Amino acid sequence: MRAVVYHGPGDFRVERVADPTLREPADALVRVTRTSICGSDLHLYHGPELPFRGFAVGHEGLGLVEETGPAVERLRPGQRVVVSCTAGCGECAACRRGLSSACHRLAPTGNVFGFSPSLPGAQAEAVRVPFADWNCFPVPDGVSDEQALFLSDVLPTGDLGAELAGVGPGDAVVVFGCGPVGTFAWRCARLRGAGVVIAVDPDTRRLERARDAGCVAVDPARDDLDATLREHAPEGADAVIEAVGRAELLERAVALARPGGRIAAIGVTLEPVTLPFLGGLFTKSLTLRSGLVSPQRHRDHLLRWVREGRLDPSEIVTHRLPLAAAPDGYVLFDRHRDGVLKVVLET
Amino acid sequence: MRAVVYHGPGDFRVERVADPTLREPADALVRVTRTSICGSDLHLYHGPELPFRGFAVGHEGLGLVEETGPAVERLRPGQRVVVSCTAGCGECAACRRGLSSACHRLAPTGNVFGFSPSLPGAQAEAVRVPFADWNCFPVPDGVSDEQALFLSDVLPTGDLGAELAGVGPGDAVVVFGCGPVGTFAWRCARLRGAGVVIAVDPDTRRLERARDAGCVAVDPARDDLDATLREHAPEGADAVIEAVGRAELLERAVALARPGGRIAAIGVTLEPVTLPFLGGLFTKSLTLRSGLVSPQRHRDHLLRWVREGRLDPSEIVTHRLPLAAAPDGYVLFDRHRDGVLKVVLET
Amino acid sequence: MRAVVYHGPGDFRVERVADPTLREPADALVRVTRTSICGSDLHLYHGPELPFRGFAVGHEGLGLVEETGPAVERLRPGQRVVVSCTAGCGECAACRRGLSSACHRLAPTGNVFGFSPSLPGAQAEAVRVPFADWNCFPVPDGVSDEQALFLSDVLPTGDLGAELAGVGPGDAVVVFGCGPVGTFAWRCARLRGAGVVIAVDPDTRRLERARDAGCVAVDPARDDLDATLREHAPEGADAVIEAVGRAELLERAVALARPGGRIAAIGVTLEPVTLPFLGGLFTKSLTLRSGLVSPQRHRDHLLRWVREGRLDPSEIVTHRLPLAAAPDGYVLFDRHRDGVLKVVLET
Amino acid sequence: MRAVVYHGPGDFRVERVADPTLREPADALVRVTRTSICGSDLHLYHGPELPFRGFAVGHEGLGLVEETGPAVERLRPGQRVVVSCTAGCGECAACRRGLSSACHRLAPTGNVFGFSPSLPGAQAEAVRVPFADWNCFPVPDGVSDEQALFLSDVLPTGDLGAELAGVGPGDAVVVFGCGPVGTFAWRCARLRGAGVVIAVDPDTRRLERARDAGCVAVDPARDDLDATLREHAPEGADAVIEAVGRAELLERAVALARPGGRIAAIGVTLEPVTLPFLGGLFTKSLTLRSGLVSPQRHRDHLLRWVREGRLDPSEIVTHRLPLAAAPDGYVLFDRHRDGVLKVVLET
Repeated sequence: MRAVVYHGPGDFRVERVADPTLREPADALVRVTRTSICGSDLHLYHGPELPFRGFAVGHEGLGLVEETGPAVERLRPGQRVVVSCTAGCGECAACRRGLSSACHRLAPTGNVFGFSPSLPGAQAEAVRVPFADWNCFPVPDGVSDEQALFLSDVLPTGDLGAELAGVGPGDAVVVFGCGPVGTFAWRCARLRGAGVVIAVDPDTRRLERARDAGCVAVDPARDDLDATLREHAPEGADAVIEAVGRAELLERAVALARPGGRIAAIGVTLEPVTLPFLGGLFTKSLTLRSGLVSPQRHRDHLLRWVREGRLDPSEIVTHRLPLAAAPDGYVLFDRHRDGVLKVVLET
Repeated sequence: MRAVVYHGPGDFRVERVADPTLREPADALVRVTRTSICGSDLHLYHGPELPFRGFAVGHEGLGLVEETGPAVERLRPGQRVVVSCTAGCGECAACRRGLSSACHRLAPTGNVFGFSPSLPGAQAEAVRVPFADWNCFPVPDGVSDEQALFLSDVLPTGDLGAELAGVGPGDAVVVFGCGPVGTFAWRCARLRGAGVVIAVDPDTRRLERARDAGCVAVDPARDDLDATLREHAPEGADAVIEAVGRAELLERAVALARPGGRIAAIGVTLEPVTLPFLGGLFTKSLTLRSGLVSPQRHRDHLLRWVREGRLDPSEIVTHRLPLAAAPDGYVLFDRHRDGVLKVVLET
Repeated sequence: MRAVVYHGPGDFRVERVADPTLREPADALVRVTRTSICGSDLHLYHGPELPFRGFAVGHEGLGLVEETGPAVERLRPGQRVVVSCTAGCGECAACRRGLSSACHRLAPTGNVFGFSPSLPGAQAEAVRVPFADWNCFPVPDGVSDEQALFLSDVLPTGDLGAELAGVGPGDAVVVFGCGPVGTFAWRCARLRGAGVVIAVDPDTRRLERARDAGCVAVDPARDDLDATLREHAPEGADAVIEAVGRAELLERAVALARPGGRIAAIGVTLEPVTLPFLGGLFTKSLTLRSGLVSPQRHRDHLLRWVREGRLDPSEIVTHRLPLAAAPDGYVLFDRHRDGVLKVVLET
Repeated sequence: MRAVVYHGPGDFRVERVADPTLREPADALVRVTRTSICGSDLHLYHGPELPFRGFAVGHEGLGLVEETGPAVERLRPGQRVVVSCTAGCGECAACRRGLSSACHRLAPTGNVFGFSPSLPGAQAEAVRVPFADWNCFPVPDGVSDEQALFLSDVLPTGDLGAELAGVGPGDAVVVFGCGPVGTFAWRCARLRGAGVVIAVDPDTRRLERARDAGCVAVDPARDDLDATLREHAPEGADAVIEAVGRAELLERAVALARPGGRIAAIGVTLEPVTLPFLGGLFTKSLTLRSGLVSPQRHRDHLLRWVREGRLDPSEIVTHRLPLAAAPDGYVLFDRHRDGVLKVVLET
């Protein structure tokens, strides 16, 4: 099959690799029809260089079940499914708590698709999915491929931001970043009852989307975020969601939060996080939460929102390319060209 | 001043009564400019006859602060305020928990406006409000009288329904009744993240409003509620809100709820409630919650929704009459004439 | 094997029946070494007569795994396990929520052991357990048989009472009934942080146990429950747990609860429940919760309490009999003879 | 009156200062009979030097109401009260949420007693208390002075640690530090249902107290904390409470927590906090919470625990000195001499 293969930082090639095969009784093979490029793929793309290469990258995929192992009970060949970006066994204590991203069985050897040879990725014509009953989500009729695809990662990650930030009725919420994750963070914050969402991003087109959807849009280079927040919420933000992955924005979040406010850190940063204690976490009685998404915990309510017309995740798709053009897609996405928000690859 | 005065069941008259005066240091007098007729006023209207008469009825009012006692700190004459239908002291254990409707200081002698001479009502040109800092809610600029008026009762009561039913992301919610309270119940259920709200009412126009707002509308005489629910939520309803006040609908709610479901009983019934245990509450692990509203707990987030344009409570107003025409308003509302949903009285 | 077999109300006989065998791939056979008689067995014992007979009764059992089907992953022959009284599949939406008692796969055909031929009971020398990985709880070394046995039902049921009643730090809790379930309800209420537990029962010996453990003991025939509660909690009870199974005690609970209080109904009654609305649920803003226990949700924290010495469930055992003497055990338990609290049957 | 007066780091003198007087209508004067030295007093004691001096220090005090302003409603002269270490107005949004430590009215000018001339401290013969109805806690009969005194700060601070760490039924909890705050943290963690508490401290006598009370005691210099934790909780700690005030222990907490674990930072550090993100907060889906105590939120349930005999806060008192000997008390407490845990000063 063809796949987008890692050959080192900046060197992702579309080439032929061996077809995946079933290995464990609970595995399924999924024939991928749609996949997409995620901001966290750029961490691989920008290096540092890994000690291994030659594996398919990508962790967002949708397709048709091709084959299932004997222990798979709830999938049948031909069924349309989305594949969770993080795989869990569905049975361990972490999975039972809704934290498959920290699955005791799979996480120790790497349970995010597309980051190492141990779990090859979804930017490929096919992908092997362990514990397929748990990690493949059947897509109901009436939900399109592009509406379902992002259940794999960025949609539940945005929703996780709203959940971790404890967004509730009437809350004043600040969201840093209006990329795919940030966009779904403000969407889900509104769906969960926010009173006002202040969306912060330097990109004009992204801000326009947010404004059109009812958010207050702030360009940090031109607008006064503090004054804007004060106008809507004199006490400060009830909740702040960092969806960029820059540790210093968390320090900013501490300053913006009201006493007792909650901060969710869902943007991925490689650095440690440094936060003021006196005058900050301690004095303001703040809560900081983070987490790598476990889409399994979010899929039911997200699917209900999609099916009932309250949410259309396909709204973020700006570019569609054939899988063969994946390298162009990476360049486009990495350099923020052409108003790109999300690139879908079609096989 | 003029007021709508109780003279017995079915006998509410607009007549002159003595102006209210300040009695306690924390009192305020509010010059009423808008008031409205509530479903629970009809309980008085239909009897049984009370042992006293001659007092002003009504518990939904908005107006201007006219005079304040020396212990009032946060109101000034001329300020526009809504008056909470239930009055609390703001200090006792019940009020601190957000349950001013059960205020330890005021509830024992009657703390709902307009149901006895001890706390004359808001269908009058003026009303005395005890513990005014706590029970008068200043209305911010940009929020109209008709947007603010229902903060006094039916808006927070509808929101209470959604809160008590634990409505959360993606939930399938059934709301019995699409009167003013039911309408705000489905509105707030949607704002709190419901996936789908099934609104049940025999009135075609009320159902149309609900359908136009995105609900699934069910007329129990013509539609199959069970089948409709199954189609959207095969497991059953996550939450059911009874906003009519008929005890048998709670039994229906038990049947509709999924295992672990939650039922909120906010419609007022005079009868006790009878529910199946085996095959019902016990077998299905259900939660039943009820409560008389404490608008003080809801006002901040409701006002944020209104100010930020997420909710327009004036949507329920179908009729506006001068205070002098209040008796006509009662007839209109009581007999469900002319597509009535809510009657506002202007002074 | 030998088993306690249902032949009609009052007619439970120890006799030979066919050994159970594996039927489904996820089944296990458990060789029972300890079983016990539960209050809900008395519902069968007292009738009405069932349309079938000849099956083993009982739903509290501990023993050694004898044989496992090919789909069982986490049990091995010889392992000591407790069997959950209610069986779930571990995978359906209800089980994922912690409500295996309402398992979508098993509940429709009866998923409580020992109430029909479809799932023969644990008062037997062996029992077949479906979905054994989920329904058999391995017992760690250092925990005795009698400490582990009640994890099958009455211990998690008592803990469920405290959970459903929302018992938290400093709460004033009333527990109706000091039988096995009531005893574990007050134990778990204390472990969950209750400030004071008022235990109510007419049996002097049961009250003494409660008093010795730090509860306030009330004999309803001799003591004034209202006055006792007022002395400890002038506002009323934060939480009330009904562990008897008499519907009228729930009405009493409504009167005892403070505004905003919570009532848990875990005692089994065959009748519907009738509760006052005005002056009760509504006026006091109460919460009523019920549920048939799902021991799977409780086992981890209960086992930790037992292992760490915070709880010794064997405290309730007052009588030990051989399985052959089960009919005497029923008489003893049913007639409250000899200070009986719990009868263990040994095979 | 006499007071312990700040004259610079290390220079605290007992000397005569002017008696406090009522300034605002809601003030009370409290004649102090018991006060104590807190770890956070040592922050002042060790400097850096403040720009002002001559004020009474201390924020833990109990005494008799001497005089009340005209707006005080619930206190009467002669009443025995504890004074909250942080003062709030009881009315603002922060106070209503239970966060008087961040009171919008008082916090901006300093609302902790004894840290500046704006709110002189409780290590004095008398103290002026603003908003006295909210900040003075009446002590019921049957509760001794030494049982009540620590409601002012260290007892609710320990309880706050357990609350912020979300300690619940069966949890495995690690507490760093067994000083007064750490001791109350493990006490309250146990009262809130912890399965096992691992108490970590280098002081043998403090560890012995913890062990005697049922904790697992770990001396970090001699014992293997990781191995001890693994033995009791193979997944890691459900909750970690840092009660020392050393930022690096929070990094240790991240390593000890299980996936989804909660960390409470209640020890006061002047430095910012640095925590690993990848491999830490993010990968393990952790929650970090901090806060300066608001004793008002804790007093009711703590008092119930004390009155009902579940908690005896006087257990921490190791030394009693007259107020005149306060400088000796500081030396004793600062240098960890004579097995000191808590020094009470009597006036």
